[in-house]
Amino acid sequence: MKITTKTAHFTSPLYLESGRILEPYDIKYETYGELNEKKDNVILVCHALSGSHHAAGFYEGDKKAGWWDALIGDGKAIDTKKYFVICTNTIGSCFGSTGPMSPQYPSEEPYRLQFPVITIKDMVKAQKQLLSSLGIHTLHTIIGGSMGGMQALQFAIEYPHFAKNIIALATTYATRPWAIAFNKVAMEAIRRDPRFKNGNYAPDDFKEHGLDGLAIGRIAGHISYLSPASMEKKFGRAYVETDGLFELFGRYEVERYMEYNTNNFAKIFDPLSYLYIIKAINTYNLARGHGSLYDAINRIEATINLISFKGDMLFFPQEMEHIAKMLKRVNKKYSYHEIDSDYGHDAFLVEIEKFDFLIKEMLEAVE
Amino acid sequence: MKITTKTAHFTSPLYLESGRILEPYDIKYETYGELNEKKDNVILVCHALSGSHHAAGFYEGDKKAGWWDALIGDGKAIDTKKYFVICTNTIGSCFGSTGPMSPQYPSEEPYRLQFPVITIKDMVKAQKQLLSSLGIHTLHTIIGGSMGGMQALQFAIEYPHFAKNIIALATTYATRPWAIAFNKVAMEAIRRDPRFKNGNYAPDDFKEHGLDGLAIGRIAGHISYLSPASMEKKFGRAYVETDGLFELFGRYEVERYMEYNTNNFAKIFDPLSYLYIIKAINTYNLARGHGSLYDAINRIEATINLISFKGDMLFFPQEMEHIAKMLKRVNKKYSYHEIDSDYGHDAFLVEIEKFDFLIKEMLEAVE
Repeated sequence: MKITTKTAHFTSPLYLESGRILEPYDIKYETYGELNEKKDNVILVCHALSGSHHAAGFYEGDKKAGWWDALIGDGKAIDTKKYFVICTNTIGSCFGSTGPMSPQYPSEEPYRLQFPVITIKDMVKAQKQLLSSLGIHTLHTIIGGSMGGMQALQFAIEYPHFAKNIIALATTYATRPWAIAFNKVAMEAIRRDPRFKNGNYAPDDFKEHGLDGLAIGRIAGHISYLSPASMEKKFGRAYVETDGLFELFGRYEVERYMEYNTNNFAKIFDPLSYLYIIKAINTYNLARGHGSLYDAINRIEATINLISFKGDMLFFPQEMEHIAKMLKRVNKKYSYHEIDSDYGHDAFLVEIEKFDFLIKEMLEAVE
Repeated sequence: MKITTKTAHFTSPLYLESGRILEPYDIKYETYGELNEKKDNVILVCHALSGSHHAAGFYEGDKKAGWWDALIGDGKAIDTKKYFVICTNTIGSCFGSTGPMSPQYPSEEPYRLQFPVITIKDMVKAQKQLLSSLGIHTLHTIIGGSMGGMQALQFAIEYPHFAKNIIALATTYATRPWAIAFNKVAMEAIRRDPRFKNGNYAPDDFKEHGLDGLAIGRIAGHISYLSPASMEKKFGRAYVETDGLFELFGRYEVERYMEYNTNNFAKIFDPLSYLYIIKAINTYNLARGHGSLYDAINRIEATINLISFKGDMLFFPQEMEHIAKMLKRVNKKYSYHEIDSDYGHDAFLVEIEKFDFLIKEMLEAVE
């Protein structure tokens, strides 16, 4: 599988939903496989909150593959021998696309909190610009989970004729207060951390010791990505160390997991990007700008494939069912699958074997 | 209803489960109603994580009653015309009983992190000491929700002949990793807050501006006390303020709720006490010291009444059902009710009208 990583630079303005303008802007992206002559084999993959354009394959020397490598590759469900796959780093993120720590043209100083609020609609618009610049005017499929699924659905509504097929996993139609509350932990923990300096930190400040506020917020995130059942299976009441007194002073395995994952995360993810992206998730509402959810969904021309996970404690299956019901009511082409899983929200990243065959079918069904 | 608030001082040692000794120690407690001559009308009420001995009634000039005032009082389900009700502040807490900010005898300096780890079993043992000192050697009923329910169940196992009747609400048999993970947010947020100073703060440091770490941890707590459905009903996607752009820059109602409740809480609750009490909750395991949960439950002589709430996202109904099944298997007197509620864990404090009649029945059934 051929991996190509590039950055596209745009000097034309991106008109944002807030009324503000992002200009200029960069989009970092990665492609796998080859574009065919008819340019009708393009699959756009959209990433979630902490993801990047690096969705599949290994970089030289790396031990860890891209975040959806189990799904994307030669002979895999998203077969890179057949499809030309593109994944972009969303604007606002911190892996190469323009975000709050990018220089605010014409100065060389970062935007920081001057960066405009970004919405899912803006992320989608930027991706559309990139695709146009590459001469791609129709998509075979747009696929994504969680915030990636939000982008896929938003795409189907804003640009109804652009993609033939949408696959949205573990997502919703508008972020509910339960999810906003989890994001609130991160928002407050970052904002109140003195080392955050109201956004005026130096880019290298967190390389050795990540921002505690981000690590703490991420613990709350990880709770929402798992489920009581998956924690039970993974950790139970097992403890890491003890001084001999049964379970009394032990640090629990679940505590170690939270520390380990979040301390590392805080070293590699930019706290301002985190704030901007959770804001984008909070403000996500397919109905906005369309009068009602009904009006929004009625615009759709693509086939919509929805996959939810039974144990998802962040975006509950009922939320995707709500979309399915509405699609049915307005007579759109759709499918809805609830995967029997108690893994939690992260199932879309982890339990690939439970749904990759469905994705294969959904891709092959496109005419 | 007569409210009496007192502090009992004990100079004899309290032997803790950890092997350490607490000596001397104080227990602050409150009583409602009158002890009858036979001393057989005593109900012990046990509080939850953030509670205190002030379970019912109003202090002079106060607008807010005790935390279970809807349940306890003249003519209420726990009828103070009939019963003599005692509620103690648990050791480790910060409302008058000995806790980490109490002086470490013989010095006048607070224990801080030298305070011994406290368990639910220790809390119960201290309450038992208080009751003995008051000449009370049997209890009519022990009742509590959440951590209060843990105490009630622990009591039934450690002192099988002490209480005739147990009512435990919204609790579990051993804290599961899901709940430990929520506590982990608070633990890390407090520990990493520079103003916490590794426990070496001054007692007045947080009077005006509470410890941010405690407020942040408490946001995570509040998520676990509510439920997706109750948040939906309470907040939806409503926002507090906006600058005119529909929902784009608004702070959501759910965010305001989290800020308001947690900032205030951080001004009145001691962060070290919070750490010690969540540790007690994490280490709670009825099986500990008894070989197995089966062995522990087999010790019980009291009637056990269990009340769970369908929408409880902290201690799920299945956990209480597990206790009920085990009680059944070993042929103990018990009842189990799952209350139809989507309020979440806090239902035991809020939706009193859904279960107060049950409590009345459970109390009246005692011979």
